[in-house]
Amino acid sequence: MDEMEANQFREFGKEMIDYVADYLENIRERPVVPTVEPGYLRQLIPSEAPNEPEKWQDVMADIERVIMPGITHWHSPKFHAYFAAANSYPAIVADILSGGIACVGFSWIASPACTELEVVTMDWLGKMLDLPKEFLACSGGKGGGIIQGTASEATLVALLGAKARAIHFAKKEHPDWKDSDIISKLIGYTSCQSHSSVERAGLLGGVKLRSLDTDNESRLRGDTLEKAIEKDREAGLIPFYAVATLGTTASCSFDNLEEIGPVCNKNNVWLHIDAAYAGAAFVCPEYRYLMKGIERADSFDFNPHKWMLVNFDCSAMWLKDPSWLVNAFNVDPLYLKHDQQGNAPDYRHWQIPLGRRFRSLKLWFVLRLYGVEKIQEYIRKHIGLAHYFESLVKADDRFEVTQEVVMGLVCFRLKGSNDISKYLLKRLNKRGLIHLVPSEVRGTYFLRMAVCSRLTEKEDMDVTWKEITEAAEEVLAGKYMNGN
Amino acid sequence: MDEMEANQFREFGKEMIDYVADYLENIRERPVVPTVEPGYLRQLIPSEAPNEPEKWQDVMADIERVIMPGITHWHSPKFHAYFAAANSYPAIVADILSGGIACVGFSWIASPACTELEVVTMDWLGKMLDLPKEFLACSGGKGGGIIQGTASEATLVALLGAKARAIHFAKKEHPDWKDSDIISKLIGYTSCQSHSSVERAGLLGGVKLRSLDTDNESRLRGDTLEKAIEKDREAGLIPFYAVATLGTTASCSFDNLEEIGPVCNKNNVWLHIDAAYAGAAFVCPEYRYLMKGIERADSFDFNPHKWMLVNFDCSAMWLKDPSWLVNAFNVDPLYLKHDQQGNAPDYRHWQIPLGRRFRSLKLWFVLRLYGVEKIQEYIRKHIGLAHYFESLVKADDRFEVTQEVVMGLVCFRLKGSNDISKYLLKRLNKRGLIHLVPSEVRGTYFLRMAVCSRLTEKEDMDVTWKEITEAAEEVLAGKYMNGN
Repeated sequence: MDEMEANQFREFGKEMIDYVADYLENIRERPVVPTVEPGYLRQLIPSEAPNEPEKWQDVMADIERVIMPGITHWHSPKFHAYFAAANSYPAIVADILSGGIACVGFSWIASPACTELEVVTMDWLGKMLDLPKEFLACSGGKGGGIIQGTASEATLVALLGAKARAIHFAKKEHPDWKDSDIISKLIGYTSCQSHSSVERAGLLGGVKLRSLDTDNESRLRGDTLEKAIEKDREAGLIPFYAVATLGTTASCSFDNLEEIGPVCNKNNVWLHIDAAYAGAAFVCPEYRYLMKGIERADSFDFNPHKWMLVNFDCSAMWLKDPSWLVNAFNVDPLYLKHDQQGNAPDYRHWQIPLGRRFRSLKLWFVLRLYGVEKIQEYIRKHIGLAHYFESLVKADDRFEVTQEVVMGLVCFRLKGSNDISKYLLKRLNKRGLIHLVPSEVRGTYFLRMAVCSRLTEKEDMDVTWKEITEAAEEVLAGKYMNGN
Repeated sequence: MDEMEANQFREFGKEMIDYVADYLENIRERPVVPTVEPGYLRQLIPSEAPNEPEKWQDVMADIERVIMPGITHWHSPKFHAYFAAANSYPAIVADILSGGIACVGFSWIASPACTELEVVTMDWLGKMLDLPKEFLACSGGKGGGIIQGTASEATLVALLGAKARAIHFAKKEHPDWKDSDIISKLIGYTSCQSHSSVERAGLLGGVKLRSLDTDNESRLRGDTLEKAIEKDREAGLIPFYAVATLGTTASCSFDNLEEIGPVCNKNNVWLHIDAAYAGAAFVCPEYRYLMKGIERADSFDFNPHKWMLVNFDCSAMWLKDPSWLVNAFNVDPLYLKHDQQGNAPDYRHWQIPLGRRFRSLKLWFVLRLYGVEKIQEYIRKHIGLAHYFESLVKADDRFEVTQEVVMGLVCFRLKGSNDISKYLLKRLNKRGLIHLVPSEVRGTYFLRMAVCSRLTEKEDMDVTWKEITEAAEEVLAGKYMNGN
């Protein structure tokens, strides 16, 4: 075997470290969105894998030739689409270690450190957010945290736990009911503003979810939920699950937890909180008013891999009572049993996949190498940049801000018809200097400017705003001249 | 912000590269399984995250102090538990690049290279296994490959696709049936030897799966499946899904695809093939007889992150017709739409999570830096080592090999009662030099010796066998002396 030897790895790995550092240091200079057409890449590489080993230097050279022309640069300060994806040096280094150890942490014995570091760092993180102690493993109760791959998995996991709980209680009351009868009666709730992955969790989990209207500020309110639950109960359905969103994707609105929580508790409805993006802000005490009422929830999830500097995949989920999941989906063959079951969580029972990487290393590295205060500064800086951008928009009479700016997202549009803002986005995409995606709430189409990059500074906001106003001038001029 | 700067990253990252190289070069010297007790780690680190940034050198120093005492060293040649987990230098370097780019590839436009490299490398890999062209994207049909996180997700994804297809056809025939009526009639099939994650997929997907008996060599046979389907049809159920395993976890047996496939096709049952471990061997033509009949399957999955040198998470799945998934679980909000939908796969519709890392980079790096022939050599070497170990067992009258050795797994036991082999495993665990897990098939308890490490050589097999015979002597002596 003349496979890659350790010495070659030392060279190649270090070259890649330098490449990544150079890439991120100079990312502003790259066009943020590629101009390639679908199928571009197939033409650039052979149609089959090579028979003989290639040189690592040739692979290295192909990064600029093959990969980079097709990259949307999420960490460019000119990238304002979706929400931020995290990218930090400590997390990248931690993942090297995770790759080197390469354990598969499905049970405690499969690598005790892999489970235990996750238990403890999830406690660290929970304390940073001032979560109720029922969510923390260190409180000695049933609760605890787990790193899921994505918020969409957390929503599905919570739904499956809620489903198991509801079936259990329905059977207790009606021992003659079959599972399928019960499942057909189950009904969950979310707002029309929740993420598409919530609706998808309902489809995947095979249960009905009702999409509820929000108030004028895109917030789900308690009375809306209560009325829906009452109506469904009267129709013979079994309300079992509700997802509240803190920081919606469309416009970063916050459901009213203080109202929703008691309604859920009273009705034995599992309340899951999806704070995928905005949850990171709760490290700052001044934003915790937005999560008031969280003590009523059964599960809570946010993504450090969005706005807290831990590279994907790191979705932090806490459950008050994971036993609903563990018991419902526990299959325990001999080859996975070990002597310490019961003394430490076997995270395989808390998640959809069996296997799992050593993901807590990157959370640990980031928390230690930034520290709580720097993470708070980071959040505040992004929110400050969003407010600065907001002030630029508001100072221009041709534009309007469509939603209160609370986090790092500014929703704005050209005054007038939706079409004119749609055309503005088209122009911006055509010009290609910055990247935005649109959204629509209650019939109003708008553009979303998310502060995404760790590297973003005030000057970048100026560049973005200048680009938007230039494109707007083109659009407005075009419109007046030829109706386009 | 005095967060970690690029220059510090260059130092820290390179130090970590050296650490990982040193770790793997010297892994033989570490005790393979830790002796820590549950809760060990919490005592070694503070109970809260630090407020101020720590030095990276301090974090580095904590790897040996905090992490390593709790690591089960999956890449030690003394590790023979479960199945292999992959770990290679090219894959680790590719993951650095993936972390540096840190795009979230849920749609084509979110980073065209992320989608397209996956399409093409999955074609490469499919060709290496000589998969039927209906599975390959380059054939121009509906089929194609995707990298899932784990084989358990692939099993669930296939089940959900099968469920959607079955509901579609049942509704066509019986427009008055409700979904819940149909779902309660659905019945899937797998063998009693399939992986626990198959049973779990049924629980998660909310459908019944029937566990079928195997023949004496732990293989599911066509007539067993056919009879079960007929019986279920007569009882008014709707057979919809079957999972065949190529290389079971318990004993590495292979279901008879040539018999099972036609039964599934005739009955409109979605056939999913779980070749999580053994699938890698099909890069060698001489093992493809074990996958004969694969052209009848609807989906096929194996884990390059087990036995093909690509670090976790890389589970390679091919589907003949992904549209069953895409259409059933497609939720498409405005902020995820883009102009090129339809011209390239949006992999978010093919999987459970929404977000996804740039995982194809590590597959690409491994295939190029090893090349097909070296990967074949690697597989053959592991199988050769297993046969060498088999010969050692067979030469010792006290032992027996319980299952034909086909891949890198040897199932063996001390002749006599199950208890004596259980006690042997306990002794081995207590001695701590090597790590094995047990299994049980048709009432016979045995030990599994899996060749796991990339570094394993013939001498390591000798060490393992010497350790087993020494422990066996203790056990046998003890048994004769005091009945323990």
